[in-house]
Amino acid sequence: MDDQLPPADLPFQLYSDTEPFPLVMGRTLDHMHLSFESWGELNEDHSNAVVLFTGLSASSHARSHALNTAPGWWEAMIGPSCGLDTNKYFVLCINHLGGCFGSLGPATIDPASDKPYGPTFPPLTIRDLAKAAHRLIRSLGITHLYACIGASLGGMLSLEYAACYPDQVNRFISISGTGRTGPQSIAYRYVQRQVILNDPAYHDGWFYDKDERPTKSMAVARQIGNITYRSRQEWEDRFGRSRTGNGYSFGPDFQVESYLHHMGHKLAHHFDPNSFMILTKAMDLFSLGYGFSSYREGVARITSPNLIIGVTTDMLFPIDEQEAIHLALKNEAVDSQFLALDSLSGHDSFLVEVEFFANAIQNFLRE
Amino acid sequence: MDDQLPPADLPFQLYSDTEPFPLVMGRTLDHMHLSFESWGELNEDHSNAVVLFTGLSASSHARSHALNTAPGWWEAMIGPSCGLDTNKYFVLCINHLGGCFGSLGPATIDPASDKPYGPTFPPLTIRDLAKAAHRLIRSLGITHLYACIGASLGGMLSLEYAACYPDQVNRFISISGTGRTGPQSIAYRYVQRQVILNDPAYHDGWFYDKDERPTKSMAVARQIGNITYRSRQEWEDRFGRSRTGNGYSFGPDFQVESYLHHMGHKLAHHFDPNSFMILTKAMDLFSLGYGFSSYREGVARITSPNLIIGVTTDMLFPIDEQEAIHLALKNEAVDSQFLALDSLSGHDSFLVEVEFFANAIQNFLRE
Repeated sequence: MDDQLPPADLPFQLYSDTEPFPLVMGRTLDHMHLSFESWGELNEDHSNAVVLFTGLSASSHARSHALNTAPGWWEAMIGPSCGLDTNKYFVLCINHLGGCFGSLGPATIDPASDKPYGPTFPPLTIRDLAKAAHRLIRSLGITHLYACIGASLGGMLSLEYAACYPDQVNRFISISGTGRTGPQSIAYRYVQRQVILNDPAYHDGWFYDKDERPTKSMAVARQIGNITYRSRQEWEDRFGRSRTGNGYSFGPDFQVESYLHHMGHKLAHHFDPNSFMILTKAMDLFSLGYGFSSYREGVARITSPNLIIGVTTDMLFPIDEQEAIHLALKNEAVDSQFLALDSLSGHDSFLVEVEFFANAIQNFLRE
Repeated sequence: MDDQLPPADLPFQLYSDTEPFPLVMGRTLDHMHLSFESWGELNEDHSNAVVLFTGLSASSHARSHALNTAPGWWEAMIGPSCGLDTNKYFVLCINHLGGCFGSLGPATIDPASDKPYGPTFPPLTIRDLAKAAHRLIRSLGITHLYACIGASLGGMLSLEYAACYPDQVNRFISISGTGRTGPQSIAYRYVQRQVILNDPAYHDGWFYDKDERPTKSMAVARQIGNITYRSRQEWEDRFGRSRTGNGYSFGPDFQVESYLHHMGHKLAHHFDPNSFMILTKAMDLFSLGYGFSSYREGVARITSPNLIIGVTTDMLFPIDEQEAIHLALKNEAVDSQFLALDSLSGHDSFLVEVEFFANAIQNFLRE
């Protein structure tokens, strides 16, 4: 059964579970494991846990620590006296079920076949990710979260977690997420998936034993994402019509193309295409109303005080979607606050405008 | 030399030219031909010609006629008493140089090799397209255009034509175009081209004699375009989160995905990928300031009265770009009008809100 575990050299903590784990769409995992990282100390009554849910492509490595000193993706946010203050909170960041950073996912060896699950990995929903995280959290003896927080996919997951476990989440923050995914956002992920599906190196998902990986298509899929992660105005200011100096070419010629080239190739080699397929699809399927007779009924499960944050230039989950979930929660008499950040950094603002988010998070958690 | 001509059964009129045609980026075509369609009659003093420049993927078949009764892409716009009134005007629609609808382009047989030019076709700019169109127009004995008009790529071309031949254009209309292409718009076309370049069936542009064409990548490239041609709000209203009923899949599952699937495959089989590469690149390179010491100097070539139209929901060439060119022209004391259409149809509004555009065009041409 060791085969199911992520490589031993990954500096993650590991939660492993052999209790059957039924999934929303019908299949059942007969074992499950999640990897995670943590900062700060769990206090005596286990009341200071803050769970951080990541976006689509980030790992649990949100901040450096003794076992992995590389800077994390939210390095300045987590630490003593930071936005997520490790003097006060036990901060826990979990690698999503279905992902490729040590949690059970398509690249994990299936004990039944002794090969990676690959495309046979079962369909997931955001609710499955929330339920898996809940098992891990309970296994640490945490019955109530001080808070959960996340941006993008993590923002959806914060909402869904609060909807699934309303009595176990004291408060939550959802950043640049949505209460239900809209058609334009689905469309972007659809074309990203088509790029991968069309790549002969993807081999319908059975590429693990091949010499060539579908990195070309992963790079392009990422580049499509990158367009939606920032804003047009930022790129006007940052790149304008500057050229690289390489001359006329269908490849990187303008500076913006060189940026995309770099961004695409950075992700292509460290993200599993099958995880990309399954997690983007989970994002498309996401609605708080999923499985309920109305969206409103799904929203009404949420009772915890919350802070919803959006960014005026977000193309992927535009700010009216964050405002809509805030208003839907207020409509259910839930204590909900809404912050609109006017930044040119678009969907990615949480990675850029760290000071704004640190202040907002600190103020909200302190209340 | 017959090899250079488009198939004889295409119901286009043809202009052929053996005068060397020097291109902006340095190479010279030693022959050139353009196909076109026309409606209405050229009057005695040749003063009633209105040239219509198409977008990237449209052919000259803007309206049905005796030789081709299929409805055109602007069927309701052209005809007796229509927006482009064929009782008054001789309306001429030209297939772009470099395109694939009968004009000289990458799919044309190169007499030097007896094979299609393919990827050896020289780099083009919007200025080359304007100069080629000018030769055709002069060959018809038209020294002054009553007007030129175009949307999207055609809107850029209207501007460029008026900049190259200010004394020969009495007025012009530029719809949903730009005076210079911005980085986000370049980024969309960059990823579209990467999709095609990565397709093994593209064979670096040498696919003409192969059994399989790079239709899969052309479909995806088109789908990326389709996202930018409409607006998020239109899709919210039109598709929302409706499913096809086919069930969970990485392909068409949501209605919006089914729409994209259909749109992509519609274009994939009738547009030449090499034309797509070369014309999208020409769009990226477009700036009225190209080759001048400043953008302003490039803009200042334009002297003809003009109407600039934009749409509030255009993602690809957002309305501030049309307003910017209008203001730049006013700044040069050019008689410029600006119309902002508040429509959910985005960049494609000219194909949807035909009545608005017909009225605007009629009013402007009548002045």
